[in-house]
Amino acid sequence: MEELQTLKNGADVLFLTLGAVMVLAMHAGFAFLEVGTVRTKNQVNALSKILVDVAIAIMAYFFIGYFLSYGISFYKPVPELNIASGYELVKFFFLVTFAAAIPAIVSGGVAERIKFNAHLIATFFLAALLYPFFEGITWNSNYGFQGFLEKTFGFGFHDFAGSVVVHAFGGFVGLAAILVLGPRMGKYMKDGKVNFIPVSNIPFLALGSWILCIGWFGFNVMSAQAIEGISGLVAMNSLFAMAAGIFTSLIIGKNDPGFIHNGALAGLVAICAGSDVVHPISAMIIGGVAGILFVKFFILCQNKWKIDDVLGVWPLHGICGAFGGIAAGVFGLEALGGAGGVSLMSQLFGTILGVIIAFVGGYILYKALDAIIGIRVSEDEEYAGLDISVHNIQAYPEESKL
Amino acid sequence: MEELQTLKNGADVLFLTLGAVMVLAMHAGFAFLEVGTVRTKNQVNALSKILVDVAIAIMAYFFIGYFLSYGISFYKPVPELNIASGYELVKFFFLVTFAAAIPAIVSGGVAERIKFNAHLIATFFLAALLYPFFEGITWNSNYGFQGFLEKTFGFGFHDFAGSVVVHAFGGFVGLAAILVLGPRMGKYMKDGKVNFIPVSNIPFLALGSWILCIGWFGFNVMSAQAIEGISGLVAMNSLFAMAAGIFTSLIIGKNDPGFIHNGALAGLVAICAGSDVVHPISAMIIGGVAGILFVKFFILCQNKWKIDDVLGVWPLHGICGAFGGIAAGVFGLEALGGAGGVSLMSQLFGTILGVIIAFVGGYILYKALDAIIGIRVSEDEEYAGLDISVHNIQAYPEESKL
Amino acid sequence: MEELQTLKNGADVLFLTLGAVMVLAMHAGFAFLEVGTVRTKNQVNALSKILVDVAIAIMAYFFIGYFLSYGISFYKPVPELNIASGYELVKFFFLVTFAAAIPAIVSGGVAERIKFNAHLIATFFLAALLYPFFEGITWNSNYGFQGFLEKTFGFGFHDFAGSVVVHAFGGFVGLAAILVLGPRMGKYMKDGKVNFIPVSNIPFLALGSWILCIGWFGFNVMSAQAIEGISGLVAMNSLFAMAAGIFTSLIIGKNDPGFIHNGALAGLVAICAGSDVVHPISAMIIGGVAGILFVKFFILCQNKWKIDDVLGVWPLHGICGAFGGIAAGVFGLEALGGAGGVSLMSQLFGTILGVIIAFVGGYILYKALDAIIGIRVSEDEEYAGLDISVHNIQAYPEESKL
Repeated sequence: MEELQTLKNGADVLFLTLGAVMVLAMHAGFAFLEVGTVRTKNQVNALSKILVDVAIAIMAYFFIGYFLSYGISFYKPVPELNIASGYELVKFFFLVTFAAAIPAIVSGGVAERIKFNAHLIATFFLAALLYPFFEGITWNSNYGFQGFLEKTFGFGFHDFAGSVVVHAFGGFVGLAAILVLGPRMGKYMKDGKVNFIPVSNIPFLALGSWILCIGWFGFNVMSAQAIEGISGLVAMNSLFAMAAGIFTSLIIGKNDPGFIHNGALAGLVAICAGSDVVHPISAMIIGGVAGILFVKFFILCQNKWKIDDVLGVWPLHGICGAFGGIAAGVFGLEALGGAGGVSLMSQLFGTILGVIIAFVGGYILYKALDAIIGIRVSEDEEYAGLDISVHNIQAYPEESKL
Repeated sequence: MEELQTLKNGADVLFLTLGAVMVLAMHAGFAFLEVGTVRTKNQVNALSKILVDVAIAIMAYFFIGYFLSYGISFYKPVPELNIASGYELVKFFFLVTFAAAIPAIVSGGVAERIKFNAHLIATFFLAALLYPFFEGITWNSNYGFQGFLEKTFGFGFHDFAGSVVVHAFGGFVGLAAILVLGPRMGKYMKDGKVNFIPVSNIPFLALGSWILCIGWFGFNVMSAQAIEGISGLVAMNSLFAMAAGIFTSLIIGKNDPGFIHNGALAGLVAICAGSDVVHPISAMIIGGVAGILFVKFFILCQNKWKIDDVLGVWPLHGICGAFGGIAAGVFGLEALGGAGGVSLMSQLFGTILGVIIAFVGGYILYKALDAIIGIRVSEDEEYAGLDISVHNIQAYPEESKL
Repeated sequence: MEELQTLKNGADVLFLTLGAVMVLAMHAGFAFLEVGTVRTKNQVNALSKILVDVAIAIMAYFFIGYFLSYGISFYKPVPELNIASGYELVKFFFLVTFAAAIPAIVSGGVAERIKFNAHLIATFFLAALLYPFFEGITWNSNYGFQGFLEKTFGFGFHDFAGSVVVHAFGGFVGLAAILVLGPRMGKYMKDGKVNFIPVSNIPFLALGSWILCIGWFGFNVMSAQAIEGISGLVAMNSLFAMAAGIFTSLIIGKNDPGFIHNGALAGLVAICAGSDVVHPISAMIIGGVAGILFVKFFILCQNKWKIDDVLGVWPLHGICGAFGGIAAGVFGLEALGGAGGVSLMSQLFGTILGVIIAFVGGYILYKALDAIIGIRVSEDEEYAGLDISVHNIQAYPEESKL
């Protein structure tokens, strides 16, 4: 029996390690999605922001954030730290890759004009304070929020893999940052004209999307956090939401490659919350609606509302994430073939609360940073591109030299 | 003992999920192999075809194909669906990534001139009907085909990971589609001259090959479908066939990067069938021969037979897959250090049957589609490239705008 | 109990297979790191070298190297070979991906001017003889070296995942090869002027770095070689060293994207040896120092010492690897919160011995090859680029044709 326990410990640590590594890989996906979407003069900056984000988020979450959300610290010698094959350590590893997703999501919205240092400082506060606060009240029952919802509405706020905790949260912080920052130079003219700023590289955009799709199965499946809780349903629902997101964005988006490669992600964002409780056919519906939502809101933002969200992170993560949080409260019901155990009221409550904390907290953070150090590069720097003005190099230095 | 069973279930679901995700990732490999090989004006189309293929194949196989091949449907509520950690669901996930490989293989052969919609409709029929039929008779013993072979030749048709069921099948459907479609404009002149159409991007081609190679270990190793059946031999044989395919294609292909990166795949295609029964040294021989077959047949197709198979999918998947199916009946014999349990006659029978069903079925499918909706783009569209004519964008929009 | 043993065997084989596949994937990372760093005219050669290296290393290590280091051969029929789910076979698979890393590391240093065939022959000797010799004395206790150190200094030479055995070894072989080969044409002028040769493609460089970072978790975590030995500490320490390497290289390297993407790797190189014994905060220190060492030594090599190490493989793998080997003997001590069981003297002894064997062995190997077949391409070939002169094609053939 002891031998079985050892094997079980090992299997759990392997399970979470694989999940953590897959979500870490998603950051390469964020990087290439941004590289492909921004103009060539900002590709190096996109790569650098995402990589350094990861580093800063790890430190901020280790020293402050994780303690805030789960009350666990790691200040003990190695033999005590690594008991039960070090499960507590890989749990941190898994969860820090989620925390690091917040600045990675924001990064795509504020691309091409935010100051590098301002972005990195914001990353610190997002991973150390803002994200852990909402993560804690949702995923750590000690905070009392889930108990309150259970008493009031029968069930707590169900967000299995973070449609709201990660995606809607990141998307609404991104929206706040974009509003504080303003649109890229030359995007919206004084006479009301909207200029089209072309993306640079569809293959890199597609590569980013593929990496994110693949890593997403670690994000969702390993959110069970122990091999005992693994669920084939979560895997299948993720696949189906992805497929449906591709399909509807293809139709609504008129074969546009940017829309279909983001449509896959839209489906995946929306299914996170309910992937463990809805039927695969419901997952198709959720993913399909998300694909439509993304395309419609992206076009509205860019052309009508004049919100210059470069990668469409608010439509993708914000809108589809919030939709996914609420949808889990509908399609998760037993009446619709789901597993039950969810309450629509709790889903609405949790989703709206998450969105408000993200937007208000994000707005205050970026406003404060703007007042203290300024968050926007100068017009000259923006015109020259952040690659040359921040990193002193271009994405294809040999070509530039010729 | 119950605890052990729970752990075993969890381990099996994890095992198959990892396999499924790795094979899903291979589709990114198919995409980039095609992106690198087609001309720049068709790169967006290559990416879009592969991604949407996956989405359509998932739906077609879920609603029709999987039921045809295995007689399993999923129309029950979540609690019944997800028993034993949802093993049945991830089995579907694993197998649908194989089904989706058929249109992905075809895609590379018909690139640069097939209508997008025609390709997607063909994908539907391939994943819903044609592939599940041969898959069923090979991998579902209820069909009686295996029983017939066992009675007649002592052993059934052994195709562990799909040299024939997936690769030869896809390759011969591809050949049929290519013959119906005809060569690219300007490839073969009336006076018999053969024009060389250059590939666009070797690094993307290589990236695609690498992704395929890595994912292939999920394709082969996880074909055991349960952790109890995992075999280090399968992993090692796959590695050795890959290495030998690289080596012989390097020699025969005179250092050509396209040949060596496809040579690795040729070895992997050929080893699928017998990877669980042949000796590692036999795997080297099989992979090495496959590397030679690929290069030789690719050159014959392009230059002598005037079959304009853009990525060489018939030589790669068709020829090397069929060779692998037959080779398993030779090198799997105990006399050659193999595990035994195979019959050369059954291998010949199964391989030839698969090839015939694929080619005839594929020919009828594409001929019918051509008669009804037409499968080839107009000359103007082909000349302009499918990116601009189908997707209304180019692969590097910023550059194109300058 | 038998059932438990079967599951345990299966889990161990899965564990090592995943590790092996992840380290195999790192070779794609080596390839793209080199593709992005060399000039466009040598990108095809970079891709080809790395892929063919893998193939040759597999064969050399199978037929000679592995027997040298561990005394195990595979000349028996399949049923005997594949016992216990084939654990011995995947152990070979895992370890051969390490052996293949030696030529992949060297490749980055000698890029843009080494003869393709000379490089491949060197690969054979590195994987068949030089690497297995030092690998054997470190990781195979039968060699007596560890016993000698234990008797003399209390503990043996601790190199958990190969800071010295793989990285410092590869880096110092690389240094020897670079010194024999000399700098690239036009790099250092007779009047002492140093020309800056620009890299070609930062996104590919970053892609390579990301692939390496992700695969590294297989390199380190799966070095336990059995699921029983899995350690969350190893995963967490790897993550922290990576993060710290990014952070310090950002500061010291002034936002340079090449430095930060290599800084992540510097941290990972340095943590390999002690990842199972040091505290996460020590891992941060080790990774942070490695990031600084890489940047400083890279600049010294290129500008002051006139060592034209194209990718900086000696600073990255050689210096940071040796530092990591020694650091394990300091931060692993119980007094510093570590797990103990290490001796600084043994670490110094093992590290220095590894470095000497690598450098002297490498120097003799490349000098001998140079005397017999010549290891450097002609000036005309170097000027034209190895893509066209060795592979008869360029990286972007369609563009070149226009």
